[in-house]
Amino acid sequence: MRRWNGWGDESDHFELSDDARDFLRARIGDGRPPHDATIDEALRGVADSRVHAAARFDTDPRLRLLHARGQSFPDWVAMKSGRFGPVADAVARPASHEEAADALAEAQKLGAIVIPYGGGTSVVGHLNVPVGDRPVVNISFERMNRLLAFDEKSQLATFGAGTPGPQIEAQLRGHGALLGHFPQSYEFSTIGGWVVTRSSGQQSLRYGRIENLFASGRLLTPRGALRIGSAPASSAGQDLREAVLGSEGRLGLLTEVTARVRRLPASEDFHAVFFPSWEAGVEAARAITQAEVPLSMLRLSNEIETETQLRLAGHTELIKWLQRYLGMRGIAQGQCMMVIGASGSLGATRRMRREALAIAKLFHGVHVGKAIGKSWAKNRFRGPLLRNALWDAGYAADTVETAVNWPQATATMRAIEAAAREVLYADNERMHAFTHLSHVYRQGCSVYSTFVFRSTGDPDGDMERWRRLKARVSTAIVEHGGTISHQHGVGVDHAPYLIHEKGELGLDLMRAMARELDPQQMMNPGKLFV
Amino acid sequence: MRRWNGWGDESDHFELSDDARDFLRARIGDGRPPHDATIDEALRGVADSRVHAAARFDTDPRLRLLHARGQSFPDWVAMKSGRFGPVADAVARPASHEEAADALAEAQKLGAIVIPYGGGTSVVGHLNVPVGDRPVVNISFERMNRLLAFDEKSQLATFGAGTPGPQIEAQLRGHGALLGHFPQSYEFSTIGGWVVTRSSGQQSLRYGRIENLFASGRLLTPRGALRIGSAPASSAGQDLREAVLGSEGRLGLLTEVTARVRRLPASEDFHAVFFPSWEAGVEAARAITQAEVPLSMLRLSNEIETETQLRLAGHTELIKWLQRYLGMRGIAQGQCMMVIGASGSLGATRRMRREALAIAKLFHGVHVGKAIGKSWAKNRFRGPLLRNALWDAGYAADTVETAVNWPQATATMRAIEAAAREVLYADNERMHAFTHLSHVYRQGCSVYSTFVFRSTGDPDGDMERWRRLKARVSTAIVEHGGTISHQHGVGVDHAPYLIHEKGELGLDLMRAMARELDPQQMMNPGKLFV
Repeated sequence: MRRWNGWGDESDHFELSDDARDFLRARIGDGRPPHDATIDEALRGVADSRVHAAARFDTDPRLRLLHARGQSFPDWVAMKSGRFGPVADAVARPASHEEAADALAEAQKLGAIVIPYGGGTSVVGHLNVPVGDRPVVNISFERMNRLLAFDEKSQLATFGAGTPGPQIEAQLRGHGALLGHFPQSYEFSTIGGWVVTRSSGQQSLRYGRIENLFASGRLLTPRGALRIGSAPASSAGQDLREAVLGSEGRLGLLTEVTARVRRLPASEDFHAVFFPSWEAGVEAARAITQAEVPLSMLRLSNEIETETQLRLAGHTELIKWLQRYLGMRGIAQGQCMMVIGASGSLGATRRMRREALAIAKLFHGVHVGKAIGKSWAKNRFRGPLLRNALWDAGYAADTVETAVNWPQATATMRAIEAAAREVLYADNERMHAFTHLSHVYRQGCSVYSTFVFRSTGDPDGDMERWRRLKARVSTAIVEHGGTISHQHGVGVDHAPYLIHEKGELGLDLMRAMARELDPQQMMNPGKLFV
Repeated sequence: MRRWNGWGDESDHFELSDDARDFLRARIGDGRPPHDATIDEALRGVADSRVHAAARFDTDPRLRLLHARGQSFPDWVAMKSGRFGPVADAVARPASHEEAADALAEAQKLGAIVIPYGGGTSVVGHLNVPVGDRPVVNISFERMNRLLAFDEKSQLATFGAGTPGPQIEAQLRGHGALLGHFPQSYEFSTIGGWVVTRSSGQQSLRYGRIENLFASGRLLTPRGALRIGSAPASSAGQDLREAVLGSEGRLGLLTEVTARVRRLPASEDFHAVFFPSWEAGVEAARAITQAEVPLSMLRLSNEIETETQLRLAGHTELIKWLQRYLGMRGIAQGQCMMVIGASGSLGATRRMRREALAIAKLFHGVHVGKAIGKSWAKNRFRGPLLRNALWDAGYAADTVETAVNWPQATATMRAIEAAAREVLYADNERMHAFTHLSHVYRQGCSVYSTFVFRSTGDPDGDMERWRRLKARVSTAIVEHGGTISHQHGVGVDHAPYLIHEKGELGLDLMRAMARELDPQQMMNPGKLFV
């Protein structure tokens, strides 16, 4: 059973070791364990539905509550405090494209607003229910979670939009294929959600972003079905796939996704390399990327993330051994960990690793073998579970991410962390901020920062603190020329910053697209742009 | 000096050998050498300009004539017959973004239509001047042909939109870099033209289509400058680069292009492999592509193209040797030639070649070494010159191209060629049609057909024949689910077929984008869509 007010399955826990607790205490002080609301308390706040239950519309308050929020910081505060705010009037859970079309038509008849629901993992408020006179309907794709067609010759696979990562790969494995899209939310997020939020997986270096994997699909707009070209490539005008990618529900319901798949790689491994400094690591990351070593991933943690990861992972013995070894190799203070991944034939992965390690060595990188890489790979989707454990220990956590060109990577990282720390000076509190770069491109990389701070013990206090944090770090991002999001999307939390990269005319263009396909503005209004 | 009524530089000739002439005569009969108009005759048809010459607007009839046409079949008939049809009232040739902005503002004041002009190599009528009351201005980028900025750390280079291929690579070479975009029109077509027509180069397998190379740029719309995001990647809503790609001048003037470049490869070679049949070659092409051997190109000619290329290239001795060798290896009738290219370090190119040849061998491919591959590479941009030679010998030529998924490749190729041949049955004439596939993707490939037929000796007769040909082969393409263009764009010639892949709603979406940025519909109206 999925947690109703946190991340992951209820049976799945991330335990904070005593050492991890000591580490946090020394960094930011004792946590203040929370008093979370029960689901019954939360349910008391659910208003009556304004629509009649119908064949396609379920008005059960519990169901509506469970579809009302994602995983953003405001979503967490809402869920933990039981103060959910408005929830949809009904939830439709179509089992097919045709049923989805019926649900959309019914919503249209009601003059309702539709909020498409995929895996409920949005961290930017894509699912927020607006306050207003129009009824609101969630159309959830949780029953559209299967492989519908597989074309081996064209390496194309069609899925229901609500198919989450593990089901995708399990069903493809039977055909000897894989998609290779592994965002951290992989266990719950869905292929439809990935497309409409322009998601990127941890191994995008090899498998590509969702833009590269999305071949075609079925989009139901309020004006009817939009055809999305299915040729392998085309110069026939604008590529309409690109109008759907990142549209965040504003253009219609994406019900099915045809994706470009590959053969399963014969071999895959992950290795860790330690660098004496962040700057050395960044230069190595750039050199490896621009040499076009065909790795499947590359991730570089800054010194605080490196220390935090090792401490929170709780590998006390491993760390002791590692520090002795690194010390002998001349790496002590300020060490930064890089994890690289290689996938392919046995020979190819060996060659890639050799090439990458040879370049790393030029920048004084020390290869420490497979153990840490393996451990990273094993826990790659467990990061969000840590948020549960931190919360229970009285700490709040959030993340921001961007992408910048290589010359801006270090300054952006430092500016984000400095902005986050400054936010808490006034409160006489400390911020534990750490960062990695990943998703490397010849042109630049993504920069991903995590913030841990003490809860105030009060939802309003937490939100006030977070609002200041979000504003400061987002401003730091746009001031450094970064995109407001490399992989999370815009939703409501990032919408105020979009103007910096799109300009007023660019936003007009996005608005014009939505207006054309959704003249009544019924599709997820308020998200992406206003 | 560039030919005013044909392809290429006036000093550059492709000579048809006696053997080539015999080959054509046997295939489609004796050519009827043409009576082409002189430029003076053509100039007599140029109407007076409807605008006053101004600082930015040149109304010289010869200049206007030279910007009035591209290289489509209708353009050729117009140029050869001297019956150009309408030409623009003025030509502006700005030397900078700011001058282009001034020219656009001036055109706006005049209520004029603007036709952006890059290298004049369009083969689908992008440059056609509409008949109507509004004056027409060509804004040509020929003076904006330089490298403006080079960011080595981000591997980004900014060019004036009018920079043609050879100038791009020459200027990058000084930085040890290359762009790697090599369409057949490379010598004359421009980086701005590549972007707005979604061009693809011969080595797109390694370097990517222009979509992958286009990082950002400056687009002047009638409503002002559109910002195009410059982050390496982003999930912040729709990617506005994609609105510009394939916009064919409808959204504004693209004045500068920032492109993602690479380091120059240390080594590059091209090899030829012969297959006993087209089907074997297609299966080999698919297998090599889906094994993700990182070649820079792969091109498979069908049996008629294979024979035609060898005969027209005039390598009589080479052919004799080749046929003896292939005969010994069991390949005779129906042989199909594949050319593969590999670029990279010496070790990497060797490895790719070895991997590709090993797969080819599984499909009975016989490697014949470097000579033919080298000859192909040497002549890769000379194909269009052949059209001059054919015309002078009394033959007309045209091409069509599409992209389809792998299972449709063979049927599409056969249907296009059959449709082309049938067109001339009624005239008791023969069509020489041949095809290759190239631009291979995991999902499918492009299919590119060339048609050679006897001129009627009369422009109206040629056009009537061509219209039937174009309609029949375009219908065959859309009936097989192909895109109406993989690399040439839409212009006016393909506009009627766009509905098959975009649908009415998709066309509405494209129209809405243009209307938003160009409310007066002054930007290249009638192209792409009506």
